[in-house]
Amino acid sequence: MMNVYNFSAGPAGLPKEVMQKAQAEFIDWNGLGTSVMEISHRSKEFIKVAEEAEQDLRDLLNIPDNYKVLFCQGGARAQFAAVPLNLLGNSTKATYIDAGYWAQSAVKEAKKYCEVDVVDAKMIKEGKLAVMHASDWKIDPQSAYVHFCPNETIDGVEISELPDTQLPIVADMSSNILSREIDVSRYGVIYAGAQKNIGPAGICIAIVRDDLLGLAHELLPSFISYKVLAEKDSMFNTPPTFAWYLSGLVFKWLKEQGGVGVIEKRNAEKASILYDYIDSSDFYTNDVHTQNRSRMNVPFQLAKPELDGLFLQQAQEKGLVSLKGHRVVGGMRASIYNAMPIEGVKALVEFMKEFAADNA
Amino acid sequence: MMNVYNFSAGPAGLPKEVMQKAQAEFIDWNGLGTSVMEISHRSKEFIKVAEEAEQDLRDLLNIPDNYKVLFCQGGARAQFAAVPLNLLGNSTKATYIDAGYWAQSAVKEAKKYCEVDVVDAKMIKEGKLAVMHASDWKIDPQSAYVHFCPNETIDGVEISELPDTQLPIVADMSSNILSREIDVSRYGVIYAGAQKNIGPAGICIAIVRDDLLGLAHELLPSFISYKVLAEKDSMFNTPPTFAWYLSGLVFKWLKEQGGVGVIEKRNAEKASILYDYIDSSDFYTNDVHTQNRSRMNVPFQLAKPELDGLFLQQAQEKGLVSLKGHRVVGGMRASIYNAMPIEGVKALVEFMKEFAADNA
Repeated sequence: MMNVYNFSAGPAGLPKEVMQKAQAEFIDWNGLGTSVMEISHRSKEFIKVAEEAEQDLRDLLNIPDNYKVLFCQGGARAQFAAVPLNLLGNSTKATYIDAGYWAQSAVKEAKKYCEVDVVDAKMIKEGKLAVMHASDWKIDPQSAYVHFCPNETIDGVEISELPDTQLPIVADMSSNILSREIDVSRYGVIYAGAQKNIGPAGICIAIVRDDLLGLAHELLPSFISYKVLAEKDSMFNTPPTFAWYLSGLVFKWLKEQGGVGVIEKRNAEKASILYDYIDSSDFYTNDVHTQNRSRMNVPFQLAKPELDGLFLQQAQEKGLVSLKGHRVVGGMRASIYNAMPIEGVKALVEFMKEFAADNA
Repeated sequence: MMNVYNFSAGPAGLPKEVMQKAQAEFIDWNGLGTSVMEISHRSKEFIKVAEEAEQDLRDLLNIPDNYKVLFCQGGARAQFAAVPLNLLGNSTKATYIDAGYWAQSAVKEAKKYCEVDVVDAKMIKEGKLAVMHASDWKIDPQSAYVHFCPNETIDGVEISELPDTQLPIVADMSSNILSREIDVSRYGVIYAGAQKNIGPAGICIAIVRDDLLGLAHELLPSFISYKVLAEKDSMFNTPPTFAWYLSGLVFKWLKEQGGVGVIEKRNAEKASILYDYIDSSDFYTNDVHTQNRSRMNVPFQLAKPELDGLFLQQAQEKGLVSLKGHRVVGGMRASIYNAMPIEGVKALVEFMKEFAADNA
């Protein structure tokens, strides 16, 4: 088996150690003679898995006691509907900060449920894509909440600031949760589809401040009700137990790495290695201003786009896979989530150098 | 590793051959050097998995071309909301046949969205729990659809008749799909959470007749919209790819067994072995009338309920696990879905005989 570095944007590569452990105990977990996915979610064995996963996540993100941690189904797209249906209360309006594709997707769904005040925060700065400073985002004080997506996987844009508001802040952290330290107490709701930095596709984490649990729309489906999920320990319906278990293994792996602070430094180093090389090269470009470059998703273009196919083919031959850019923007994209080791990024840069030398 | 027979009601045991294959290729699937859960759902490799799973399911159930097969998230509880939100159209009413716990749970959710006409179909026949014949179910012709649950996992009740109506019939087949032959063309919508007869928890199949795709409520969340899922090949949002892949392996296993007709005979034989022994015994009882006994879930009570704990403990020591009845009814329950081999049922009966002899 070739050593493969997987740059998939999601579903993304999981830590090798996690996958090896899960494989070893796949059909005989915990000495039970069955898989963890073949036991009741209400068994004491699975409840221990569930509780440990929650506690490890609480430890990793320093989640205050007045926040519920919910394990949901349906991914971030489900939250695009769940957020307004859970949070609008008597309000008819919400503010959405638009810095890219996923923020816009959230807006589209929210418009079913309320008047959406969209703040277009994109701008061009020194010829590069950038995001306006948070102090320039005009937020309607009548809004029930302010929604933003701090990391746009397709555009490769990351926002390190928060909306400057007393309103509840809702963040779609699908692609950068656990990649850097955050102050959870500044948010009303944080949600994140698992398939980038948490675990396999099919589970979504929502971290919800207690005081926001009583604002649901009467037509909110129960299975995406924050209140119902909180009351039922995320077991109102049968949860995706295997995905929950794997997410728990990832949380333990993160703790073993030294926690979010350590992984943040590693992520910064990985991103620097890649961006520094791109900036030093005449053959590759990245269109995002340094102020907003994502540490997770690095889109780049070749000077000769007609060589895209050859680049992908030769990269794959070297075990550097899933580098094709998103279908809506083209080019290349290297997603370098927590599970990507520094060696993977170095191997990519090495290949990019060779490819540029051969094809300049 | 002890040979274990797993009688869990769900998440339930999967076929041993499926689990062994999934373990073998867990970290190096299809020669890619990664897991199937670590690749894009839009990759050609995963799309092949997705399409084969759908085609195999179509073959197994003889699904007509005018039905869409959707792979959803959220389980059957999500469908409890999705069904009225997708199907009500201009109607304000739906009829629900009540034969047990899960039908009642569907009613509770549906009441958020419409007037629910509940037909209480439960009755006592010769001292046993039974269900009235379909010809006695009074169906309001103003209903948008008629919903029923043909297998009640908790009560151990199965219904082999269909509502006698021209209205679209909606069936929650979570616990008996693929266990017996059905005529799909008689239904409007069939849905089934995977974690009993299909695959792991976290995925739900919906089989929807084409003409029912345009009736959605304006507040229907897009990720549970039948129309959106149909248009996007169940990839509106990132699907639970690993659960989809495992479900596909189960479908292939079913075909290898000879298809649904063969598995139906095996299921009938398994159920007979267990019910025949219970009926012949003075120590065990089952409360369901023969006309409505479930082939999938066999609840039974000990003559001395104070021995329940000892029964469970000794069963477990023999590798007969997850026999505890549902928390709302107590006693024992043996769930004998497709993946349970006949040998497992025979081993259970053998143990039950010994236990009765030791404790009569």
